Amino acid sequence: MNQQYPSILLEKAVGEFSKLPGVGRKTAMRLVLHLLRQDTAAVEAFGNAVITLKHEVKYCKVCHNISDTETCRICANPLRDVSTICVVESIRDVMAVEATQQYKGLYHVLGGVISPMDGIGPSDLQIDSLVERVKAGGVKEVILALSSTMEGDTTNFYISRKLNGMDVTLSVIARGISIGDELEYTDEVTLGRSIVNRTLFVGTV
Amino acid sequence: MNQQYPSILLEKAVGEFSKLPGVGRKTAMRLVLHLLRQDTAAVEAFGNAVITLKHEVKYCKVCHNISDTETCRICANPLRDVSTICVVESIRDVMAVEATQQYKGLYHVLGGVISPMDGIGPSDLQIDSLVERVKAGGVKEVILALSSTMEGDTTNFYISRKLNGMDVTLSVIARGISIGDELEYTDEVTLGRSIVNRTLFVGTV
Repeated sequence: MNQQYPSILLEKAVGEFSKLPGVGRKTAMRLVLHLLRQDTAAVEAFGNAVITLKHEVKYCKVCHNISDTETCRICANPLRDVSTICVVESIRDVMAVEATQQYKGLYHVLGGVISPMDGIGPSDLQIDSLVERVKAGGVKEVILALSSTMEGDTTNFYISRKLNGMDVTLSVIARGISIGDELEYTDEVTLGRSIVNRTLFVGTV
Repeated sequence: MNQQYPSILLEKAVGEFSKLPGVGRKTAMRLVLHLLRQDTAAVEAFGNAVITLKHEVKYCKVCHNISDTETCRICANPLRDVSTICVVESIRDVMAVEATQQYKGLYHVLGGVISPMDGIGPSDLQIDSLVERVKAGGVKEVILALSSTMEGDTTNFYISRKLNGMDVTLSVIARGISIGDELEYTDEVTLGRSIVNRTLFVGTV
């Protein structure tokens, strides 16, 4: 549709929204017109929320997780186990692991994985600071919780080389069939790994 | 997923985004993190675009279309045919009709259709001002281009009653099978109407 915008301001706002990932011109138009129907205070709250976030957000100086303070809530929590570090790609992964309520250690947010195709090398990621944390001592285990992709595996390998010779246990989160999944629909690589890495049956799975 | 946000500012921004239609918490998070990766100027441009739009946008005093000026570009254009008014529900419908490049008259944006279920009555819509425009004279034809729904039909009927007795032709846009559609997949109401309202074959369809 050859869109002739009735207002330059409208066109500008639609243009900004359509820069968002997965948002096309039509969706952008729908979202902007929705906002336009809200009262001024609501629109200001919307616009200022992202501006304030961008201006004031901090990244934890220890784990690089997003934070309102110098050190994030997790790193500052005295109840967390400081001897375990879970290495993840992004803030969303921290939230995903936290949601499981199964982990009481600390995190280290890499900011991505090594991906030469996207021009992301080890120096673009928070790998050096991870090595520094381990070198500083007190860390017994580093859990690698990256995506099960070639890039994730490459990054795991790179980190393992970097931590080589240090007195720390390196582990990887378990790969296997998802809870509730049926065997016949599981791909053979995953199924194969789940047989190789089988665990002792202890009543519950 | 029980989401524990690492930052109150982040939670606030995600909250604002998830108020948008069709945007859930996960999508909101993705959009906010995307913006966070942009530079400050880009985030400010985004936030301010909607705030400026809300503050400065005007609605055309003639047709109620969105506009940067008192009278919109279409109403102010001397080349448009002022004797024809196309009645539509929304700004998006104006843009849709304009995109066809088949219409050279003016518009009248109602701001919706009569829908008692949603609490929208005739007084919530720009129907009185339409009647005033016709009363003022110079209008030869009013084209009703509302949705082909019960609400649209009700509104068409209401407007026709309001314009009753005035010296103006009232027409409705053609309903029929869409260009490129196959007969066997067309619903019978549409197909029936397209037979009743058949037009003379003049070489091209």
